[in-house]
Amino acid sequence: MEPRRPPGRRPGNPGTRDAVLAAARAAFAERGFDGASVRGIAAAAGVDPALVHHYFGTKDKLFLAAVEAPVDPADLLPEVLTAAPEDRGAAVVRVVLRLWDGPARPGILALVRSAVNHEWSARLLREFVLTKVIRRVVGSIDMPVEERQARGALLASQVVGLVVTRYVIQLEPIASASREDLAAAIGPTLQRYLTGEVDLPGAR
Amino acid sequence: MEPRRPPGRRPGNPGTRDAVLAAARAAFAERGFDGASVRGIAAAAGVDPALVHHYFGTKDKLFLAAVEAPVDPADLLPEVLTAAPEDRGAAVVRVVLRLWDGPARPGILALVRSAVNHEWSARLLREFVLTKVIRRVVGSIDMPVEERQARGALLASQVVGLVVTRYVIQLEPIASASREDLAAAIGPTLQRYLTGEVDLPGAR
Repeated sequence: MEPRRPPGRRPGNPGTRDAVLAAARAAFAERGFDGASVRGIAAAAGVDPALVHHYFGTKDKLFLAAVEAPVDPADLLPEVLTAAPEDRGAAVVRVVLRLWDGPARPGILALVRSAVNHEWSARLLREFVLTKVIRRVVGSIDMPVEERQARGALLASQVVGLVVTRYVIQLEPIASASREDLAAAIGPTLQRYLTGEVDLPGAR
Repeated sequence: MEPRRPPGRRPGNPGTRDAVLAAARAAFAERGFDGASVRGIAAAAGVDPALVHHYFGTKDKLFLAAVEAPVDPADLLPEVLTAAPEDRGAAVVRVVLRLWDGPARPGILALVRSAVNHEWSARLLREFVLTKVIRRVVGSIDMPVEERQARGALLASQVVGLVVTRYVIQLEPIASASREDLAAAIGPTLQRYLTGEVDLPGAR
């Protein structure tokens, strides 16, 4: 553990930071990413909004800190978004597996564990997947918003299942297959969900 | 809670039953379903194998009791196995969702939570999915065993993801879509994994 700093040495203190994070978690879980505001979170934590910005920067960064995201998906998505439209499914598999095969894995696994164990945490993970990943991956596709959301959710269902099967249940041969093998086997599924012919759920 | 029976009223007692279950969990997690034996489990629990059979019946039933499976997949699989070969993907979606939308949900969710939280429990769930579900669903397909296992694992990855997305993360529109809508959207994915053209992982 880090030694405690003497109180009052700088504006705010670890207690303030934690209070802001707790208020942010409650607000994002209750009202979603779009519905929650930095102003409201600051008020709930009893601090000035400027202090929240000072600590965390944008609302986006505050959200990533609140869910303890080990990476910012924005850093990974360019590889998907610059892939040729017909290669995006395989590109998603590659990026997801490279992320999980890297040093961020314990952090992501902690997120998943928390989501499975706590309803509020599941809500945060849903907001995270929805606003930070799906919205960006399917956001560039030219189609009605309901269709984009349905395609995004189908995509998420296969990606989540791949991750749980490989890293949690560790089912063979998925657990020890190469990333390229999995991109070849599962990429076409994601591709169909993104741009192919699908009877979309909830779109009737 | 049930009132305790007076000791010695019947062969064995709740303590014996729990000891057998604990030994069974350890054995199945360590050696898998095929590798573990009723004889070995009985020895580890310090009881006669006949008592294990008396309490639990077959090794299969002992395994279901050890993982606290809320249902026996064998009761659900006929619906899948009697579907026309080209309808099996959609049939799997229907059976899985009807199971989860029914009274067994809390029990299955407890299984998933435990698997995410404990390594030994993840191993038990893997054995369960592998030997009780996948092996049966793909067992009737005429192909080499490695191919069957790869197709079964791909199928599991999409089914697990559908379940987690719908019931844990509760991502819309998957969370509130009808079972038929989801069978139409996701059935073709499972169908391709079961019998379609796939670059199989680990099969090179």
